[in-house]
Amino acid sequence: MLKLPTRKILLASSALALATAPAAYAVEGMFTPDQLPEIASDLRAKGLKMKTEQISDLTGFPMGAVVSLGGCTASFVSPQGLVVTNHHCAYGSIQYNSTEEQNYLENGFLATNLNAELPAAPGSRIYVTVDLTDVTDQVSGDLSADLSGEERFAKIDTNRKALVAECEEDEGHRCSVASFYGGLQYKLIKQLEIKDVRLAYAPAGSIGKYGGDIDNWQWPRHTGDFAFYRGYVSPEGKSADYSEENVPFKPEHFLKVSAEGLDDGDFVMVAGYPGSTSRYARLAEVENTFNWQYPTWQTLLNDWIGAINDASEPGSDARIKYESRLAGLNNYKKNLGGQIEGARRVGLVDRRAEREAALSTWIAEEAPDSGYAEAISNLDALSEESAAAARSNYWYNNATRPQLLNAAQRLYRLSHERLKPDAERESGYQERDMSRIEQGLTAMDRRYDPVVDKAEWIVFLQGYLDQPASERVEALDEALDLETDMTEAAISAKLDSYYAQTALGNLETRLELMEATPSELEESTDPFMQLAVALYENELAMEAASKDRAGRRATLQPKYMEAIIAWQKDRGFTAYPDANSTLRVTYGNVLGGSPKDGMRYDPFTTLQGIAEKDTGDDPFNSPQSQLDLIEAENYGRYELDSINSVPVNFLTDLDSTGGNSGSATLNARGELVGLLFDGTIESVNSDWDFDPRTTRSIHVDSRYMLWVMEKVDNSENLINEMDIVNARGRSAR
Amino acid sequence: MLKLPTRKILLASSALALATAPAAYAVEGMFTPDQLPEIASDLRAKGLKMKTEQISDLTGFPMGAVVSLGGCTASFVSPQGLVVTNHHCAYGSIQYNSTEEQNYLENGFLATNLNAELPAAPGSRIYVTVDLTDVTDQVSGDLSADLSGEERFAKIDTNRKALVAECEEDEGHRCSVASFYGGLQYKLIKQLEIKDVRLAYAPAGSIGKYGGDIDNWQWPRHTGDFAFYRGYVSPEGKSADYSEENVPFKPEHFLKVSAEGLDDGDFVMVAGYPGSTSRYARLAEVENTFNWQYPTWQTLLNDWIGAINDASEPGSDARIKYESRLAGLNNYKKNLGGQIEGARRVGLVDRRAEREAALSTWIAEEAPDSGYAEAISNLDALSEESAAAARSNYWYNNATRPQLLNAAQRLYRLSHERLKPDAERESGYQERDMSRIEQGLTAMDRRYDPVVDKAEWIVFLQGYLDQPASERVEALDEALDLETDMTEAAISAKLDSYYAQTALGNLETRLELMEATPSELEESTDPFMQLAVALYENELAMEAASKDRAGRRATLQPKYMEAIIAWQKDRGFTAYPDANSTLRVTYGNVLGGSPKDGMRYDPFTTLQGIAEKDTGDDPFNSPQSQLDLIEAENYGRYELDSINSVPVNFLTDLDSTGGNSGSATLNARGELVGLLFDGTIESVNSDWDFDPRTTRSIHVDSRYMLWVMEKVDNSENLINEMDIVNARGRSAR
Repeated sequence: MLKLPTRKILLASSALALATAPAAYAVEGMFTPDQLPEIASDLRAKGLKMKTEQISDLTGFPMGAVVSLGGCTASFVSPQGLVVTNHHCAYGSIQYNSTEEQNYLENGFLATNLNAELPAAPGSRIYVTVDLTDVTDQVSGDLSADLSGEERFAKIDTNRKALVAECEEDEGHRCSVASFYGGLQYKLIKQLEIKDVRLAYAPAGSIGKYGGDIDNWQWPRHTGDFAFYRGYVSPEGKSADYSEENVPFKPEHFLKVSAEGLDDGDFVMVAGYPGSTSRYARLAEVENTFNWQYPTWQTLLNDWIGAINDASEPGSDARIKYESRLAGLNNYKKNLGGQIEGARRVGLVDRRAEREAALSTWIAEEAPDSGYAEAISNLDALSEESAAAARSNYWYNNATRPQLLNAAQRLYRLSHERLKPDAERESGYQERDMSRIEQGLTAMDRRYDPVVDKAEWIVFLQGYLDQPASERVEALDEALDLETDMTEAAISAKLDSYYAQTALGNLETRLELMEATPSELEESTDPFMQLAVALYENELAMEAASKDRAGRRATLQPKYMEAIIAWQKDRGFTAYPDANSTLRVTYGNVLGGSPKDGMRYDPFTTLQGIAEKDTGDDPFNSPQSQLDLIEAENYGRYELDSINSVPVNFLTDLDSTGGNSGSATLNARGELVGLLFDGTIESVNSDWDFDPRTTRSIHVDSRYMLWVMEKVDNSENLINEMDIVNARGRSAR
Repeated sequence: MLKLPTRKILLASSALALATAPAAYAVEGMFTPDQLPEIASDLRAKGLKMKTEQISDLTGFPMGAVVSLGGCTASFVSPQGLVVTNHHCAYGSIQYNSTEEQNYLENGFLATNLNAELPAAPGSRIYVTVDLTDVTDQVSGDLSADLSGEERFAKIDTNRKALVAECEEDEGHRCSVASFYGGLQYKLIKQLEIKDVRLAYAPAGSIGKYGGDIDNWQWPRHTGDFAFYRGYVSPEGKSADYSEENVPFKPEHFLKVSAEGLDDGDFVMVAGYPGSTSRYARLAEVENTFNWQYPTWQTLLNDWIGAINDASEPGSDARIKYESRLAGLNNYKKNLGGQIEGARRVGLVDRRAEREAALSTWIAEEAPDSGYAEAISNLDALSEESAAAARSNYWYNNATRPQLLNAAQRLYRLSHERLKPDAERESGYQERDMSRIEQGLTAMDRRYDPVVDKAEWIVFLQGYLDQPASERVEALDEALDLETDMTEAAISAKLDSYYAQTALGNLETRLELMEATPSELEESTDPFMQLAVALYENELAMEAASKDRAGRRATLQPKYMEAIIAWQKDRGFTAYPDANSTLRVTYGNVLGGSPKDGMRYDPFTTLQGIAEKDTGDDPFNSPQSQLDLIEAENYGRYELDSINSVPVNFLTDLDSTGGNSGSATLNARGELVGLLFDGTIESVNSDWDFDPRTTRSIHVDSRYMLWVMEKVDNSENLINEMDIVNARGRSAR
């Protein structure tokens, strides 16, 4: 699953591997739409049949049809605000509406008319980008070189907030200032915030999640990972909270859906919101991540998952509350394993060292007076310092993970921030953030169980106590009265009183405390609130140190990225910025691959593969109606001749990462031919160092989606609403 | 690994699948050499360039060069008695000679001259077939139809023993009467028994066992699974125990070794000793196996493996003694998982039912008066009865597994058998068996630890006690004073006295008792011997019932197989007998495959794949010298152009099973191009029902073997000794 964990650059591979790369290698690059004209000739060579100017227009067709769900990507596919995304992106909403009697998660859900559509989970949003402006000058244009890190961070932060505040004066919009190339560029993004989101259709879990955790990150894959939302707005067409009066949103653009789809080798592009990559990370960070952080995480994840499993019986209320966290932890664990294995396979650390040496040589030869070398040297020192801080803070951060402590910390911080004018408050505590805070405090009721929370806390505290005293935080040790050789039983006994005496498990209490003053909270007898107060100074100090590093990085990283861009340009390449949850375009072709010596992936899977995998037991328990249709070879118009079946999922060589989930996969004419929903396990290390040999993205085929909608679920109403097109792009009804 | 667990028929697949089978499907059939002329046209069509008459001559070239090691297959590859087999077949001998100082298992072993060769592990044998005669008439020709099952069994047994005894009058030979088609045919096989076997060469474990248990049953594979023995005989050329005076055996035939090897699609055949398949098993047996026996085994294996692991620290003496058993149990567990998954994939039970219905229809239409129908109906009743007996005996058999109890039972049985004339003794207790009994009692010292033995016994007894009283055996319950709800602690306490008071842990004691009389053993105070005595009557009764079933089967199964043969012949197919550890020929082509929808296996793996897998940690810790040679692309004359590398392992579509390990893989001219050493996990269910789509055998390529010998291990002495040939079959030196 690609839902937010994360991928890395043209650089790494181009510098060291592309020289010897044979033909069928993946295409690196998550380009901002405005970069597309620069790479127009390559796009044409790969097969694009549209003008690059057209696809670089964010508010035109087709990019204007691509929206963000916050963490996932989606697209409008009808003039009535119908939105298609991944089943796993709509999972929370399907679950939210499911009851024992009406289990939509298990049986699927279809609203056969607008009135039958169900509200999505609280907080669900559709963000439609309406404007994008370069605001680099306003954010960092006039900063003196003499500022300290902390001062620089504060200035940038203030400038960003001012831009956002101004932009959000246009009601119903959400704005943000995104940093590109580590602060070399800032862009103000203005998005219409559709707040009334409803669930229109989701197939049965045994289609939408077929293969489950077992197939997660795996090829061959047979997952019908699609679902449909619809965005609603006020009768005046404005962003509005849920109301019966609301009407479907009428998007300026929507995608046509192809019933013809693709064949091996065809051009594809994906527009989506990839979350984060680290392709320009310096060696110090790479080493810290792969030699220390990831292995440490792996061990902790095993213990953590074990603790949740031990503390909650399968099927119990407690376990149900933690299923989503368990899925996330298991997903991350599998991803980490893939990253570590990928780093070993490509020799990541050595490659990064070689790349840095190559850049240094180029700077020495081609740009000796640019100041690049000095900036990079300082950046490396700062990277070392950041890595050391990450190691030092790691166990403290874990030890303060319990949900009630978190709630208490947020509330206490809020009480301080509320004393300030809105513009001066910390990000996340401004008026614009109140509904999210409230929603977070509310959602806890569905995700918190005291027995499990305590079991998790014990694991974290044991890890914390295993560290040398120098890595521990006095405030925490004192507040919890921790001693180095405490047994698990002793820790457990100590924590019991926290859970026995707290009132924060109660939703009303939490929400009331949003109005509390600092002194009211300081007088609280709630043990979690007392702990939050005791840790406050330390938290602020850690935050200040972190901001100071970020402020110092804000001068060094842009210089480093300038060097990278110039170096790449000199070598004939277009450098693109690391993913930052903004709209990117990546492209390539339908392509199988060789994940390892002696083995090959076919580009398509077939309906027969579903029957082949089916055991009748979750997660390989296809609906019988689907198995019968497969047995009968009832393909309708969705058959792909070259595989004699309906294609279920397909592979491409394009560049994606977490956040790309739900992204529209477009053919050369910009028609929807699938949805990106995952990458192969051999791809995940590409977040750090793009491996062109093994990187493959996994998509659900539009033909399978339409086949299920038509044959299995009889969702004619939606099919009729969409513009289904044939091989020539003509409406095929 | 293919080392003895076990595959099934042209029938199953041909009856129901071949009709729709596309081109690239595996070739079913483990043919006896005398059947080859019958299928000559298919062999020629697949690519054989020799006369089938030539390869059906067991004592001619090339079959005369193929020998059995008992459990594995091997071949002569020089006029000096040099024998090549799998590393995993010679593993015990490499281990036997290894010490902490001279760890041949880890570092490999090369004798650069004859004097440096080391004795193989005790009991190692090379069996060279010198004659094969049809003895059906002598075994079962004159049996009255009125005999009871027990009587029939006894007559057949007596006849077989008499034939063996007569044959073994030729000293230095080992004879056996093998049953084909379930007793439709008997053949007397006479083999020269080479008793002085020495280890000549084995690569490092990190080549010979590269990938270890992780890669076991897996493709892609990169295992250098080869090793060399040499057979020695007396100066007169006779079979002889180890002696310095002995000289290398001069075989009549030996194989040339190809330095050119194969390419995708090339013809291959394999001559070897496959152990056992169940392709003609009736539905009752299939259902019992897959619905009850295998799942029950899986659960028990997990507990059993867990008990051994818990009772022995890694690296401890105890663990070292059980490593081999652990490897075997893990291998079997993986195999069982593959069998169960394969049975599900092909729908084994339904397919078997359909096949039986098709046969019945054919009999009703084409052979109504043959008596087939009645025999089959009786056979089915007998199969039900046997399945019920298997279920009923299963837990008792496990509960009596402890090694010391086994030794006691064997000794007590021996004391009874020794009172009879040799010809009348039970098989396994005749004079010809004494050295094997002694060897078994001796080998216990390397495989027995009281703490682990007891831990295993507890697991078995717990399983036994979980059964209803009707499935339990009174003699055992009484002797051990077992009660239904005994706790683990109570069982453990009871067993302690067994291990505290026994003297059977002592080798001398065990060997001395080979001479004891029944009454001496009945007076023994050794608790294990007392238990053996207490269980004796029950054991004899179980054996008698089993012999009675076997005797009744001896009339029914041949009739059933006659029907099968006639049915197949009518449909244009040649039915072959289930594997029975006799020499078989199977053939096909070098061929990749599609183990599942969306994925493909390449036919060859490459040297680069070794480097790709290498982590530096066992079992992926290739010797650095090999990695350097790979890095330098130092391929010598062993490169395969189509893959730009030296091929390491390759896949073929031929039919093999446990016991085929070490089998010579021959090209169209009968030259050695590789050694079969494993099957893919998707193949293992073919023991029951040959699945032409997924069945693939795995071979180590002769080019990789020669490349390692020449470049990594400098074994010129052996290369020079062999006849290495080029693409035209000419000596290539």
